[in-house]
Amino acid sequence: MKFCVFGAGRMGSIHAGNVAAREGAELAYVVDPNLELARRLADRLNATPLVSGADALEDRSVDAVIIASATETHAELIVESAKAEKAILCEKPIDLDMGRVRKCEDVLDKCPVPLMIGFQRRFDASLRAVKGFVGGGEIGQIETIAIVSRDPSPPPGSYIAVSGGQFHDQMIHDFDMALWMSGEAGKIDVFSMGSNLVDPEIGRLGDTDTAHVLMRFESGAFCRIDCSRRTTYGYDQRVEVFGSKGMVSSTNHHMTGVETWTCEGTATRSLLKQDFLARYLPAYAAELDEFIAAVELGRPVQPDFRCGRRALQLADAARRSHETGERVEVDAN
Amino acid sequence: MKFCVFGAGRMGSIHAGNVAAREGAELAYVVDPNLELARRLADRLNATPLVSGADALEDRSVDAVIIASATETHAELIVESAKAEKAILCEKPIDLDMGRVRKCEDVLDKCPVPLMIGFQRRFDASLRAVKGFVGGGEIGQIETIAIVSRDPSPPPGSYIAVSGGQFHDQMIHDFDMALWMSGEAGKIDVFSMGSNLVDPEIGRLGDTDTAHVLMRFESGAFCRIDCSRRTTYGYDQRVEVFGSKGMVSSTNHHMTGVETWTCEGTATRSLLKQDFLARYLPAYAAELDEFIAAVELGRPVQPDFRCGRRALQLADAARRSHETGERVEVDAN
Amino acid sequence: MKFCVFGAGRMGSIHAGNVAAREGAELAYVVDPNLELARRLADRLNATPLVSGADALEDRSVDAVIIASATETHAELIVESAKAEKAILCEKPIDLDMGRVRKCEDVLDKCPVPLMIGFQRRFDASLRAVKGFVGGGEIGQIETIAIVSRDPSPPPGSYIAVSGGQFHDQMIHDFDMALWMSGEAGKIDVFSMGSNLVDPEIGRLGDTDTAHVLMRFESGAFCRIDCSRRTTYGYDQRVEVFGSKGMVSSTNHHMTGVETWTCEGTATRSLLKQDFLARYLPAYAAELDEFIAAVELGRPVQPDFRCGRRALQLADAARRSHETGERVEVDAN
Amino acid sequence: MKFCVFGAGRMGSIHAGNVAAREGAELAYVVDPNLELARRLADRLNATPLVSGADALEDRSVDAVIIASATETHAELIVESAKAEKAILCEKPIDLDMGRVRKCEDVLDKCPVPLMIGFQRRFDASLRAVKGFVGGGEIGQIETIAIVSRDPSPPPGSYIAVSGGQFHDQMIHDFDMALWMSGEAGKIDVFSMGSNLVDPEIGRLGDTDTAHVLMRFESGAFCRIDCSRRTTYGYDQRVEVFGSKGMVSSTNHHMTGVETWTCEGTATRSLLKQDFLARYLPAYAAELDEFIAAVELGRPVQPDFRCGRRALQLADAARRSHETGERVEVDAN
Repeated sequence: MKFCVFGAGRMGSIHAGNVAAREGAELAYVVDPNLELARRLADRLNATPLVSGADALEDRSVDAVIIASATETHAELIVESAKAEKAILCEKPIDLDMGRVRKCEDVLDKCPVPLMIGFQRRFDASLRAVKGFVGGGEIGQIETIAIVSRDPSPPPGSYIAVSGGQFHDQMIHDFDMALWMSGEAGKIDVFSMGSNLVDPEIGRLGDTDTAHVLMRFESGAFCRIDCSRRTTYGYDQRVEVFGSKGMVSSTNHHMTGVETWTCEGTATRSLLKQDFLARYLPAYAAELDEFIAAVELGRPVQPDFRCGRRALQLADAARRSHETGERVEVDAN
Repeated sequence: MKFCVFGAGRMGSIHAGNVAAREGAELAYVVDPNLELARRLADRLNATPLVSGADALEDRSVDAVIIASATETHAELIVESAKAEKAILCEKPIDLDMGRVRKCEDVLDKCPVPLMIGFQRRFDASLRAVKGFVGGGEIGQIETIAIVSRDPSPPPGSYIAVSGGQFHDQMIHDFDMALWMSGEAGKIDVFSMGSNLVDPEIGRLGDTDTAHVLMRFESGAFCRIDCSRRTTYGYDQRVEVFGSKGMVSSTNHHMTGVETWTCEGTATRSLLKQDFLARYLPAYAAELDEFIAAVELGRPVQPDFRCGRRALQLADAARRSHETGERVEVDAN
Repeated sequence: MKFCVFGAGRMGSIHAGNVAAREGAELAYVVDPNLELARRLADRLNATPLVSGADALEDRSVDAVIIASATETHAELIVESAKAEKAILCEKPIDLDMGRVRKCEDVLDKCPVPLMIGFQRRFDASLRAVKGFVGGGEIGQIETIAIVSRDPSPPPGSYIAVSGGQFHDQMIHDFDMALWMSGEAGKIDVFSMGSNLVDPEIGRLGDTDTAHVLMRFESGAFCRIDCSRRTTYGYDQRVEVFGSKGMVSSTNHHMTGVETWTCEGTATRSLLKQDFLARYLPAYAAELDEFIAAVELGRPVQPDFRCGRRALQLADAARRSHETGERVEVDAN
Repeated sequence: MKFCVFGAGRMGSIHAGNVAAREGAELAYVVDPNLELARRLADRLNATPLVSGADALEDRSVDAVIIASATETHAELIVESAKAEKAILCEKPIDLDMGRVRKCEDVLDKCPVPLMIGFQRRFDASLRAVKGFVGGGEIGQIETIAIVSRDPSPPPGSYIAVSGGQFHDQMIHDFDMALWMSGEAGKIDVFSMGSNLVDPEIGRLGDTDTAHVLMRFESGAFCRIDCSRRTTYGYDQRVEVFGSKGMVSSTNHHMTGVETWTCEGTATRSLLKQDFLARYLPAYAAELDEFIAAVELGRPVQPDFRCGRRALQLADAARRSHETGERVEVDAN
């Protein structure tokens, strides 16, 4: 399977590296408006650097594209790639504007190429195991999904300014997690509160760095999300699903396993894995594996476009709730 | 110090037993409208049973009363005991009606006897340690207080019917915990959602068994509470305080410490402590110790009447939010 | 069931208190050559103090004795109590001299009263659970039993001097644990090494404070014991049984459950339970329950005299191995 | 730095892959008597396959060799490589015959090339952290080093037959760990017992699959090692160092972090990392990093030849003790 990767930044490099390292996949092109950036990545991985994607999309030997460019380019690249009949793996979010997302969805209805949204957490071994227990009925009916999602440190103001805000940038993964774990469709009540507690610069940019969301699904089950842009102790990623027969949770991952026992107590003397890369690097590789397998076998790709759109609906609702102080009802089908 | 205990039910028995077992404390009277119940408890502990408290309150050798009778009797017993100049340890809640609570508060302003509300969790060794770390500045500024509070199994319908509902009966402890841990006064935004997921009987009685509260304090810090009337795995009591410098949490207590390691993974093969008694029995004794020490040394009793009233304000607000679907602002000073 | 307790020291007080507190048991006498000590304990518990046991043993209403006096008095008190047809609960060790132990055993063969040796660990909930898993076949054939047994701090020299040494005083519980868990009879290879690392005073008294034992049972299974007279982190008591199908272990017990998460890692900020009393107090009560139940129902008392003698055989062998540097073979049937 | 790797089997592949993947290192040759094997590995990594090492050793552009061939070839390859002035990274063990090891040591005295023995555990992040705490004095004087080292499943008989036996093949890593952690030189008392409990085939080959070693260093400190060829629960690798001021331990690593809470208790529903590769793969890369850094900077290489020889001395002693049933004294300087 032959790939073109859009974007030679951090996410583009991860995906390009995974493609190059994988048996049965080939990295043909790296596209970035910054040619120098494209060249550096392409050279390292034996691919062709391009400043624009037109040539790559016209190359009929290219089977698939990975869209890891700036957010505002996603929608257009999806449309062009779909028209060129490429399978698509697109980083989240699809777009920050729901109108454009809906238009994109219309195009895909007419050009039904396989499309996966890059919610890599769905491919994390621990979270998959949680989903497996939930799906297997071990905890009975879901009553509460509890997500803690805290980054080690806030991104720079320049990133915050174009990120779409904490609900759309950071919490979008958590919204997808909520939808995936719950398996719920239908109406969802969303309430949210955010604060600027961590970094005044974030406040000046009109964004939050600490936010809480409380949701209720049609079944009556709840989901709560606890989000922060900063911990002092590493990357805090916990998911707990509580149900009528028990609870299953995915705990944090430590870098090492060292304990001390002294007159001050017992201590685990290692930090948590430091960031999303340390934690989810294997998930990105597993995501690519699943993308390739699904496309090759012609089975439905998951998470698909609809998953990306639904997560955005929740992000929109949460931001509106935060802004108005009122509960917002979403129809996320 | 000589005690009269009002109420010979479960809580009255715990308190009476603690008084009887303590050096330097003496159980003089057990009062219960059900004389047979009063007699059984009093006989076992060498005290005098009474059907009404008048004689006990007139006995000038009695220094203190413990009010563990039915909720609707609390306010009147507080007033009478205060007028009789007894020190008071009163089980939560003060009353379910805020008007009566306010009137009670007025009486106490005029008859300022020492009064402690029985929020026994404040005397649990683990939770005290958490409070100590928070107060000592180890986690910096508080950003989020997270409370999980799940009972092992729902009480019978007969109890639910007179309990005042989940927010006032079960969650009142969590509201006190939130106020104690945060040390916040001033305005508090309260949002709540509840469902009837566990036991249809509870729903028929108009109550919830699964409820979530999200609050924001004036400082911008948050508190979330996750409450259920039923787990399958024991008494789930967790408090986590997340701040600018780190996090401190109180974890669940197991009955034993046994692990198995097999081809299915590692398992802690014991349940959590089964209920609030198994978990908090030592806390009730420590509560009595502090009550006696504070009264004897003339130092302020904590948690005092105001603590009880503030927790009720939050419960009122949470119930209103649950009923209206709207955020409620409370001035809990 | 009516009891006489021999010994008004620490262990005598524990047992006397347990008898007094138990429904269906009555503490009749406390015997101690130090009358003042006997009186203080007896008065507190409504019993009769005595300086010698003769009267108590003659009192036909006394059903049982608990021997918690000085070690050198155990053997004679067992013999006298057996002749007086009392059921016996005797603290470990039976005696430090194997010849006297054997003579005692002969008397008991002729006067077969119920006799329990006070190996209270057998009644600890966690260790019982381990034994249950082992006995239930969950870990298959036992291959290695691993025991860590470390006291928080060394006893004073005056105690060490009459204790019989680390192998007989401290490790006797571990030898019983090894025999109980393994269920092995027959020949046992014993190798041991000890050092004086903790307290020079212990070395001057010719004793060790750090000792390791390695044993092999007839089945080929092993047991290792790691013993110290001092930790800085509380009472370290771990038992792990490794078998052909898995492993089961009893972990340490903490005083509270508090965790901190900071830039230095995760810490459990509580010490282990501080000493054998904090850990095993409930086990002494459960031991008494079982003693009473077994005597009343006429079922065999466990651990019995033979268990006490076999543990002593291992202690003798371990000390000899430590002294000679050679492996010692024991026939512990 | 240009490398030649001897051996194209499992260990050779790991090392060759690490060299090829590392910036600043180049894989020039893969040598294996099985040319097909050499070719397959060399082709994949852009190196030259050879059946004999002579050409590679003559190539003056080759800076270093990695010896990962069959054990009986190690000594000769060390000698030839040292004479060719190559830096050497040699897999354990040096040789199974102490006489040959001593001769090798003599050659190295005359041709003092940098030589590292492949005790990769020294480069595991957790074990390094333990060593750091020990070296930093946090636990005071070492009193007991406790090592549990259990493989997930026994190797095939064909491997056992040429392995040198459990003490030399599996436990050699543990002996090095004991020497590294303790920092002890001088006389060491060694006692050992082994059994054939896991696989009868291993017994037929005259080897053990379950073995225990107890050692005492000159300081009086102890080391115990608990070794098995089979668990049912993954790769069990624990090191605990107990000292006068506390304890530090390296715990097992899990594959994922999932917990379930049900009426049967809490379970960590993942296995331990399944084998030495899953656990120590990063350690092999770190080992190579240190080897290259040490050679380039001219700083002493650790663990060096002497470390390899001393670990072998302990393995010899342990086997002799197992065979004779007697304690063996080693002078491991």
